[in-house]
Amino acid sequence: MSHQIRIVTESELRGAVALDIAAIDVVESAFRALGEGNVVMPSIMSMELPQANGEVDVKTAYVPGIDGFAVKVSPGFFDNPKLGLPSLNGLMILFSAKTGLVEAVFLDNGFLTDVRTAAAGAVAARWMAPTNVETAGVFGAGVQARLQIEAAHLVRPFSKVLVWARDEDKGEACANDIAATLGIEARYEADPARVVAESQLVITTTPAREPVIKADWLHPGLHITAIGSDQGAKNEIDPAALAKADSYICDSVRQCAALGELRSAKAAGTWTGGNPAELGAVILGKAQARRSAQDITICDLTGTGAQDTAIATHALAAIDRAGAGTVVETSPGESGPST
Amino acid sequence: MSHQIRIVTESELRGAVALDIAAIDVVESAFRALGEGNVVMPSIMSMELPQANGEVDVKTAYVPGIDGFAVKVSPGFFDNPKLGLPSLNGLMILFSAKTGLVEAVFLDNGFLTDVRTAAAGAVAARWMAPTNVETAGVFGAGVQARLQIEAAHLVRPFSKVLVWARDEDKGEACANDIAATLGIEARYEADPARVVAESQLVITTTPAREPVIKADWLHPGLHITAIGSDQGAKNEIDPAALAKADSYICDSVRQCAALGELRSAKAAGTWTGGNPAELGAVILGKAQARRSAQDITICDLTGTGAQDTAIATHALAAIDRAGAGTVVETSPGESGPST
Repeated sequence: MSHQIRIVTESELRGAVALDIAAIDVVESAFRALGEGNVVMPSIMSMELPQANGEVDVKTAYVPGIDGFAVKVSPGFFDNPKLGLPSLNGLMILFSAKTGLVEAVFLDNGFLTDVRTAAAGAVAARWMAPTNVETAGVFGAGVQARLQIEAAHLVRPFSKVLVWARDEDKGEACANDIAATLGIEARYEADPARVVAESQLVITTTPAREPVIKADWLHPGLHITAIGSDQGAKNEIDPAALAKADSYICDSVRQCAALGELRSAKAAGTWTGGNPAELGAVILGKAQARRSAQDITICDLTGTGAQDTAIATHALAAIDRAGAGTVVETSPGESGPST
Repeated sequence: MSHQIRIVTESELRGAVALDIAAIDVVESAFRALGEGNVVMPSIMSMELPQANGEVDVKTAYVPGIDGFAVKVSPGFFDNPKLGLPSLNGLMILFSAKTGLVEAVFLDNGFLTDVRTAAAGAVAARWMAPTNVETAGVFGAGVQARLQIEAAHLVRPFSKVLVWARDEDKGEACANDIAATLGIEARYEADPARVVAESQLVITTTPAREPVIKADWLHPGLHITAIGSDQGAKNEIDPAALAKADSYICDSVRQCAALGELRSAKAAGTWTGGNPAELGAVILGKAQARRSAQDITICDLTGTGAQDTAIATHALAAIDRAGAGTVVETSPGESGPST
C-alpha cells in the first residue's frame, strides 16, 4: 500500500504558516486539551553532547481530538555561531494518531517552535493580561522578543513598546524592527525597572540565569509572561515575585517545577503555595487568573509538546492548502511479514 | 548558508544497506563504546495512545567517535493489520554531532531497526556462543526470526535450523524462507523443548508475556539470546534460568532491568546477583562471558539508542556510495537573528 509523506522546508513553511489569530487559536486549543486532562505528554527527553557544547531536547504529546501527533527534536549547539550557523535548529515530524504512519517532516530549523511559542504568549496575554494594555515591555532582543510582541499585539493592540536588552545596539535594532512591523511607537529603554513600571504587559524572552525582573517592581495592573526559562539553571523572575503576584499560572506544573520560574521559587523557598493552576484550567474556567484590572498576574511558559502537536497539524493543513512541500512515496510493509 | 539534507525511503535503504559483516561490526562498535562508558544515552521516551491502541518509543544516543547521532521514532499501532498496514513503522533522523544540523531522514518503516537488532544478535553470538554451533534454534516466525538467523549464520555458520512458533503454518513458512536464503536445512519443530535440546545457539524473537523457554531445558554448551522483551510486560525466558546460567549479560543493565528478562527475574526474586555485566564490557575484555565450551550463557537484548546511532551513520555512508536519496536544500538561520 503506497503512502505519501510531505517533506517541507523552512522557507516553504515561512511562506504558508503565519503568526496570526488562527495560530493562536490552535495553540489555545492545545492548552484547553491539557486542561481537560486527556493529553498524553511524556517528560522531555534531553541529551547533552559535552564534546560539542551541544544539547538536544525531544518533545511529544498526544492530544485527543487532533488527528496527528508531533515529535519535535530541538538541538542547541552553542559553538555554531563560530561556524556562521545558528545555535538552534531542529525539525518536527507529524505522525498519524490513527496509524502511526509519518504524515510530514517539517525541516523547519525551529521556525514552528518560534511560532507556537509566540502564540502561547498571546494565549497567556488573552486570558491573563489586563483588558487595556497601552504599553508592552519586552526583555530580550532576539527572534522571540519580536514574535512575542507581534503575537501579543493581536490580542492586546497596545500603542507603545519598550525593549530592554543587555546589549543596547541589539535592543535598538529590535525596537526598530517592532516599530516597522507593527507601525507603532517602540524604543529601547536602558532601565529595566522603568520598562516594568510603564508597562501593563511584560514578556521576558532572555536566557538569564539571574533574575532580570525584581519582585518590588511589580505594580497593580501588571501581567508578566516569562518564556525564557526552559532549563534547570535559568531564571528570569525574582523568586519572591511569584508568591507576591495575585495569580501565578504555569503552562505545565511538572515542567515549570523542573525548568521554569517555579523551580527557582521553590529552590529559594519563596513558593510554598502548593501546585499552581495551569493555563488550560484558566481557559476552561476551572481556575481564575485575573479577577480585576488591578491584579498582578504571572504566567510561566516552558513550552509543551501539546503545542508542537497543535502547530504541526496546523502547519500541515496550511501546506496542503498551499500545495507546498515535496512528496515522497513509501510503501509501509512492502517487505513481507511483520514481527 | 545552504545545507543539504538527504531524504531516503525504505526501498532505497533496502537497496543500499545489507545485513552483512560490516553492519555487525558497526553495531559491535556501538556496544564497545557503551562499554567504554562515554556514550550519552537518555532513557527511552515512551508514549501511549490508548484511543488508537498505539504506542511510540523514541531512542537516541551520542556515541563519541561517531560523527552523527540518531533520533529514532518507533510507533507501534496494533490495529493497523485490520487496515492492511503493518503494526510497526517509524523513521530515523541522523544529526551532525558537531552542529546539530539534520543530515538525513531515513523513512525506513523500521527497516534499519530490523538490521541493527539482527546485527546485535550476531554480536552476542560472536562473543558468547560456543565456537562450534551445528544447530541453531529460533523462537518466533516473523521478520526478526529470519534476520536473526541470517545474521548469526555470518558469525557461526551452522548447518541446521529449528524453528518453533505458536502457529505451525507461520513456523513452516519461516523455516522454508531460512532454508532458501541460507541454503541449509531448516524445519519447523513443534516441541520447544526439543528445539533447545538440539541447539547450541537459541534466539528468542517472540512478544511472549509468559516464558517460552523453561529453566530446566538449559544444557551445557548452550547460548541463548533473548530479543523479544522490550516492554515491562514481556518475558520469554523462565526467570529462574538467568541465575542458572554460567553467564547472563545485558545490552544495557538499566534497560534490561526495566524492559528485559532481568525485570522478570528480579520480580520473581530469582535474580539476586546484583548488576549483570554488559555486552560492551565483554567485548572490551572487562567482563568474561563464556569460559568453556560447556558453559551456559544468556544475552538479553532490549535495543539501544547507541545501535541506532551506529546503523544510521553506516546507512548514510552506504546511501552516499549509492548516490541514493532525495536531496532537500535548506538554509538554517536564513531568517534573521537567533534568540
